[in-house]
Amino acid sequence: MMLAQTDTSWFNEIQATEGSAFSLAIKRKLHEEKTPYQTIAIYETLHFGNLMTIDGILMLTSRDNFIYHEMMAHFPLFTHPEPKRVVIIGGGDCGTLREVLKHDTVKAAHLIDIDERVTRLSEQYFPELCAANHDPRVALSFINGIEWMAKQASQPGSIDLIIVDSTDPIGPGEALFTADFYRDCFSALTKQGLLVQQSESPLFHKKLIQTMRSNMTAAGFVSLHTAQFPQPTYPSGWWSLTLAGKESTLPGFREKAAFNKTFTTHYYNKDIHLASMAIPECLKNLTP
Amino acid sequence: MMLAQTDTSWFNEIQATEGSAFSLAIKRKLHEEKTPYQTIAIYETLHFGNLMTIDGILMLTSRDNFIYHEMMAHFPLFTHPEPKRVVIIGGGDCGTLREVLKHDTVKAAHLIDIDERVTRLSEQYFPELCAANHDPRVALSFINGIEWMAKQASQPGSIDLIIVDSTDPIGPGEALFTADFYRDCFSALTKQGLLVQQSESPLFHKKLIQTMRSNMTAAGFVSLHTAQFPQPTYPSGWWSLTLAGKESTLPGFREKAAFNKTFTTHYYNKDIHLASMAIPECLKNLTP
Repeated sequence: MMLAQTDTSWFNEIQATEGSAFSLAIKRKLHEEKTPYQTIAIYETLHFGNLMTIDGILMLTSRDNFIYHEMMAHFPLFTHPEPKRVVIIGGGDCGTLREVLKHDTVKAAHLIDIDERVTRLSEQYFPELCAANHDPRVALSFINGIEWMAKQASQPGSIDLIIVDSTDPIGPGEALFTADFYRDCFSALTKQGLLVQQSESPLFHKKLIQTMRSNMTAAGFVSLHTAQFPQPTYPSGWWSLTLAGKESTLPGFREKAAFNKTFTTHYYNKDIHLASMAIPECLKNLTP
Repeated sequence: MMLAQTDTSWFNEIQATEGSAFSLAIKRKLHEEKTPYQTIAIYETLHFGNLMTIDGILMLTSRDNFIYHEMMAHFPLFTHPEPKRVVIIGGGDCGTLREVLKHDTVKAAHLIDIDERVTRLSEQYFPELCAANHDPRVALSFINGIEWMAKQASQPGSIDLIIVDSTDPIGPGEALFTADFYRDCFSALTKQGLLVQQSESPLFHKKLIQTMRSNMTAAGFVSLHTAQFPQPTYPSGWWSLTLAGKESTLPGFREKAAFNKTFTTHYYNKDIHLASMAIPECLKNLTP
């Protein structure tokens, strides 16, 4: 059995198929509720600030969410030549949205999460992530993102960047990893449009990354890049995103714009952008 | 309390000051012994191969040690213009030594670990890491590395590269993080010589990284670079090394040599080398 800690409570997340677990010491549970979609819990941790879990899986902590959110937003936004219309599927905690809104090029940011309670609880327990939710460029829709994207497919060229800020590919999130969903994204994007999705751990989920890439290719995307970054509270502490484009090569990184950015970040910068694109030997055999 | 797992045994490592823990599911304990220096245990895990712990702290697993060992060896070796004489302080598991020996420039590699039992147990439970131990270029000494380096200080210019592959800065390993030890390293190195040391987690141990850098500077080193990489089974899953040189700038990365390397790696390559040097915003305020 695991630790018998008489004086500390722990939140534990087990990766059963990998035989590993990550735990955070908690002061107290602040909230728990069963929504029509999932069970959301909020804890106050000892050293990671607040913690949100969905169905027992760690979604984010106050302390380390900055890496993930900055990478999910700035990596694709500084790759697209002029991102104006951005859609975020999932991401109800609004951390990615906040980073997206730091870009002046962005004229409209539409966040679509199936569960309004994620956003309402984030407003309460992670207010810093929701600070920009009232920006006039923002639209929030609490509806099914897959159904929304299926409809949007009939409006080709209506989106510059789609960010899929999803949970793991189990349960309702699973459909967000299929060729059908990617095909709808492909249709809704402009010619220079980009799709980016979190693609789990390079150590634990290489097969999933390969499946995602194959499904993106099957949907018509012809240029892909899987980038990597640390994410301490996610399984293995090592995470990735996969970027997909419709043209034969991905647009060049807007290096000067990233270097001259006028907003603050805590992980991302020009050098980190380039660094995240390096492909370790163990991922070199990924195919499109 | 943590998980009550009736059907699985877990090795747990708690970071008390960070309120986090990492666990590996184990099949069985293969060995445990108390040496004159420490308690070494070997476990067979469910999905990480074998696991070595020292005084209850995770040292390495079969599955993910490759990242750390490749970075500790190839990063400094492809930075030094012509590394011939290499000394490894600690590193008794011989994983770093194996990587060092892949370099043809290396004429002599001297591993100095205080505890011979670490190496003997590694030969038994991590034989792949010890496969090159009988290379004629190798010398193994099971003595106190701090005392050895103090003597070596009277032979200036006798070492091209010192790799400090140490445990955490607690207990006997603590002296390996002091200006006194770094001063002896400085004396023993050639003018172009380099010192590299594992420098813990950028998320958890930023103060320690700063202290190491300050101590290296106090010892006379004038060019420093802290590089980062993922290390899934180490605290926070995000790790670093710090490289120190005696000249005003570190030697340029031998990019072509790294690109044309004739040996196999599983994480390290030319692009990863450059990537590891990127400094995230949260580490930008480190001073020499």
